[in-house]
Amino acid sequence: MPKVFKPVEISPDETAARKDYFDRHTPHIICDSVVKRGGRFCVKVRIGENYQHPDDADHYIKFIQLWNLETFVAEVQFAPGAQGGVPSNVEVDFYLTAKNTMYLSVLSACTKHGLWHSEEVKVSVTD
Amino acid sequence: MPKVFKPVEISPDETAARKDYFDRHTPHIICDSVVKRGGRFCVKVRIGENYQHPDDADHYIKFIQLWNLETFVAEVQFAPGAQGGVPSNVEVDFYLTAKNTMYLSVLSACTKHGLWHSEEVKVSVTD
Amino acid sequence: MPKVFKPVEISPDETAARKDYFDRHTPHIICDSVVKRGGRFCVKVRIGENYQHPDDADHYIKFIQLWNLETFVAEVQFAPGAQGGVPSNVEVDFYLTAKNTMYLSVLSACTKHGLWHSEEVKVSVTD
Amino acid sequence: MPKVFKPVEISPDETAARKDYFDRHTPHIICDSVVKRGGRFCVKVRIGENYQHPDDADHYIKFIQLWNLETFVAEVQFAPGAQGGVPSNVEVDFYLTAKNTMYLSVLSACTKHGLWHSEEVKVSVTD
Repeated sequence: MPKVFKPVEISPDETAARKDYFDRHTPHIICDSVVKRGGRFCVKVRIGENYQHPDDADHYIKFIQLWNLETFVAEVQFAPGAQGGVPSNVEVDFYLTAKNTMYLSVLSACTKHGLWHSEEVKVSVTD
Repeated sequence: MPKVFKPVEISPDETAARKDYFDRHTPHIICDSVVKRGGRFCVKVRIGENYQHPDDADHYIKFIQLWNLETFVAEVQFAPGAQGGVPSNVEVDFYLTAKNTMYLSVLSACTKHGLWHSEEVKVSVTD
Repeated sequence: MPKVFKPVEISPDETAARKDYFDRHTPHIICDSVVKRGGRFCVKVRIGENYQHPDDADHYIKFIQLWNLETFVAEVQFAPGAQGGVPSNVEVDFYLTAKNTMYLSVLSACTKHGLWHSEEVKVSVTD
Repeated sequence: MPKVFKPVEISPDETAARKDYFDRHTPHIICDSVVKRGGRFCVKVRIGENYQHPDDADHYIKFIQLWNLETFVAEVQFAPGAQGGVPSNVEVDFYLTAKNTMYLSVLSACTKHGLWHSEEVKVSVTD
């Protein structure tokens, strides 16, 4: 069964011991925390901070899913080689329309190391 | 953050209390437990046993992913209305080639109620 | 731009000249031509008849999409290696609920040789 | 069979007669035409220019696929409601690593009106 890694559940000890492994698989959400109702805003997702993930035929980032609580929003799928076959911080920008306060999170998949949750990001909507 | 439900982690009490909820979301793998090396075999996935899942525009089965341990194999994506807009046990048959012993599992998504793991199924390969 | 191949547009001469190329990429729909309203029925899709398609890291069947006229129904996505890394006739079974007469067709993608249409198949619905 | 619309094949007359229909479905690629070998660069895709596409449960932009000639690169999939349920110019930014000169194009799908090609964009790679 593919493991589902959640950063909030990984102990500091464990993270320190396998720093590169956790870093290069963990997705991060970068977006404004307050947006205007009805406005369009960008949600950038980037995988890894200090370490890059390979893009080999049998080991690559397969997808990045964007969720709002329990609601599926969008996902991007990559072919192997989509990152040029070299290590990188896989990245994608989604664009959403603000309706109500959102609690965004990401689930991404490495073809070899299972599923990885981001932290949850609250996006408040103001009038 | 979308919840990830695993049948092995759900207590009998909890399952009994919300029987229809758990039943209609849980994916099941139906396939031979022993296959001949190099042969093609069918892996049927069906969601729910005694209860059916709606197929409404804002509440439907979005995808069914097939994994072999930590390795992504294949997935099917459905548009809302793909099940005719009526409740059903969503179903798909994948076909695989047997190389080595596999530990298959499924992760499926309801657009409203998050992610659901199947039990893991061992498929032994013989010569 | 990825080419979009349609069997109905390929001349017999061309097909004869590159028989294996066209055969191994062309998707076929196999299903009942008449179904009972409200009933579930199986739509098998198979790629190729007499020739098999490779499953190499840089050359494999990426997806199979099922359409009803201009309406997207479902699709299956494969990872490279999903067919065991050996040539095969990639296959999947979808299950649909019959509501009204359908005109099903498939669009499939080879990661190296673009997009391929099946012939269109009419499925009549009776009461 | 889903129609496959290509802007280069649509006559000016036809485009003028149904300006909003063609505009709101046609995907556009926005990116640098020259990039440094080994560098990361952004490929923005936007659907429509002067007209926006609905985001209704039975009529929305389903996916945007990025191709390099006949090679599949990446795709984004949207749930209905991903654009807040209001008309918009659906947009996504992909990030690629420059290796060799690319000929990028996009194939996008409306759940009701079939498949739409962008124009092809050449991205030259320099040392």
